[in-house]
Amino acid sequence: MIVEDKMRMPNGFMASGLHAGIKKIKKDMALVYSERECSAAGTFTTNKVKAAPVKYDISVLKSVKHGIIVNSGNANACTSKQGDEDAAEMARLAASYLKGDKDAYFVCSTGVIGVPLPMAKIEGGIKELVKNLSPSSEALMDASEAILTTDTFRKEASAVIRIGGKDITVTGFAKGSGMIHPNMATMLAFIITDANISSSLLQKMLGSGVEDTFNMISVDGDTSTNDTCLVLANGASETPEIVEKSAEAEEFKEALNYVLSTLACLITKDGEGAGRFIEVKVEGAKSKKDARLLARSVVSSNLVKAAFFGSDANWGRILCAMGYSGADFNPDDVSLVFSSAKGAIEVLKDGVPVSFDEEKAKTILLEKSVSVLAVLKDGEEKASAWGCDLTYDYVKINGDYRS
Amino acid sequence: MIVEDKMRMPNGFMASGLHAGIKKIKKDMALVYSERECSAAGTFTTNKVKAAPVKYDISVLKSVKHGIIVNSGNANACTSKQGDEDAAEMARLAASYLKGDKDAYFVCSTGVIGVPLPMAKIEGGIKELVKNLSPSSEALMDASEAILTTDTFRKEASAVIRIGGKDITVTGFAKGSGMIHPNMATMLAFIITDANISSSLLQKMLGSGVEDTFNMISVDGDTSTNDTCLVLANGASETPEIVEKSAEAEEFKEALNYVLSTLACLITKDGEGAGRFIEVKVEGAKSKKDARLLARSVVSSNLVKAAFFGSDANWGRILCAMGYSGADFNPDDVSLVFSSAKGAIEVLKDGVPVSFDEEKAKTILLEKSVSVLAVLKDGEEKASAWGCDLTYDYVKINGDYRS
Repeated sequence: MIVEDKMRMPNGFMASGLHAGIKKIKKDMALVYSERECSAAGTFTTNKVKAAPVKYDISVLKSVKHGIIVNSGNANACTSKQGDEDAAEMARLAASYLKGDKDAYFVCSTGVIGVPLPMAKIEGGIKELVKNLSPSSEALMDASEAILTTDTFRKEASAVIRIGGKDITVTGFAKGSGMIHPNMATMLAFIITDANISSSLLQKMLGSGVEDTFNMISVDGDTSTNDTCLVLANGASETPEIVEKSAEAEEFKEALNYVLSTLACLITKDGEGAGRFIEVKVEGAKSKKDARLLARSVVSSNLVKAAFFGSDANWGRILCAMGYSGADFNPDDVSLVFSSAKGAIEVLKDGVPVSFDEEKAKTILLEKSVSVLAVLKDGEEKASAWGCDLTYDYVKINGDYRS
Repeated sequence: MIVEDKMRMPNGFMASGLHAGIKKIKKDMALVYSERECSAAGTFTTNKVKAAPVKYDISVLKSVKHGIIVNSGNANACTSKQGDEDAAEMARLAASYLKGDKDAYFVCSTGVIGVPLPMAKIEGGIKELVKNLSPSSEALMDASEAILTTDTFRKEASAVIRIGGKDITVTGFAKGSGMIHPNMATMLAFIITDANISSSLLQKMLGSGVEDTFNMISVDGDTSTNDTCLVLANGASETPEIVEKSAEAEEFKEALNYVLSTLACLITKDGEGAGRFIEVKVEGAKSKKDARLLARSVVSSNLVKAAFFGSDANWGRILCAMGYSGADFNPDDVSLVFSSAKGAIEVLKDGVPVSFDEEKAKTILLEKSVSVLAVLKDGEEKASAWGCDLTYDYVKINGDYRS
């Protein structure tokens, strides 16, 4: 697998991004298109309150073949029957200029909740997006920029693998900062690839990939109404079909997971008000599920996050958050190590507090990127989770009055 | 039921509270004692990491007869085998001066995690506590003061019912602010009553009472290693035994629930950094469990809490938190009303946004005590939850370095 510095457009895809007038100034609509028919896969928010486009995408998951149409600035969430009709209309409008029917397109929206979509602007935007479609990396960057809301930078990742002497590109872009900013919502991620792979295998790989990446990050513990991760694979690399349990499948999975995990970490780094990136690693857990529960619980704890804000080696809070995670583990066997670029320090060894140099611990924890390792003796499973500290700015951003 | 303004000591109980030297200046040890044998009940943290005194109390729950010995300033949590021995030694020391064996006493600790108890100070403290035992309300207030850590005020409640022409007093006191302050831990609540009631009925009533009170509050979503709620009933009111399904049982339950809910709300009002008290009421839920899940999810959401800090009528976040609560409900039927002493305003009606006066909403939400009512159409069940807003001060208090 080769990691690309810059987003690389997979063969056979085109993209565009522009300002359609939903937001005041910034780009607010994006289109990704493949004339060649794609396999498709998607994972969606588990929130019972699903935005209209999420409901629409779930309904067309098996029939999508050609593209994704996205708007930012309005989430089309909590918009009743009108919202459902508007989501379908977005797909119909895209299809009217391009190949296939409306069920060949995914639709995504992110932004204000509870306000109907400005359909005249959406319609004008789609017309322009189709005109601007281009296979260039720059066009993909326009699309990547157009899906942002409160994000402070674009989130992009590309990896290339070679199968039978030919390149297969896996490229993704995402948005997400707080799960919901003052009425802004959502984590969105789009992966496109020219691999030749069935929808069913793609869905399987996406499902397990998301479990270990997007499902392991937490900015504030709030699961949005619009969270969506979509993959399109058009086979334009002209390589043989990737089949399950092959060496090629392993390679492709590695590239897909690289893109997913890079995007997930970028979202965490851009967490609302975040001052510090936190990685929590759990080793020696009884099961994968226990390892994930433990890592997620620690990275989601307000008290742990506040302690990291204060560069405080407060291992009691970490153990406490492990304790209420719901995971099965033996607290008397836990060892805890804090680390960063400035070194590592053990604070708990087999359940017994280690007297440690508080100054050294503080030096380690003052770094922008810090890590906690929890080692158990319950089994062989491991998991990682990623998050950020809880800061004054988080409260400020999310406490500001909307007007 | 008559509500008492001031804590009233139930018949046959004595108490004391004093400074034993665990903390620098403030009172740090408390004793509650009944010479007459008591029925006892208790509920404990569900955290898998349980402090030594919690493990001890669970082991003696069926044998406790005479009292509760408490220290603040040190949680005796994450203190290995030594901690278990120290907890048992605290009970043994109390018993050595009073009636019964060590298994006749509950032990509670709250404060720093991971530091062994200073047993010489504890021993001296217990000796003095026994000397100072008094049946006065003032002695009970000393005890109530001695269990506090980062609390800014004492939390106390008393109710009196009359059965057969005689008074039965139900009195409680509690501590708790953040679930864990920089290494300080715990919610503790102690209820004493001179009612004549079996341990099994008392346990049943406490269990259901705690479900609707202490289990429905959230300051920061972190469940401590030491959370404990204990009840002692000594029968010294000389009234007939309260038996299940009687009118007397209903009356006693009402008094117990009054004390529990008052203490729970006082803890929320003293939440770390809290500027605003929030009540979330859910009506029309399919089941009691669904109603509780919905109310708790809303009151625990960082984004909802931050919105209340900003007095922002951000109903999208409330609906979103209901959506990921895990409860079964129909989002298309939800109505939402914000209210306070300044009035009420409906923002969502049967799932459809209501256009409302933002200025009026802000006036309502600027009050110190605010309320959200969510009305569903899924059934007849209801529940309430209580919490506080997320403020700069919360981050400050919990981000400060421990030294």
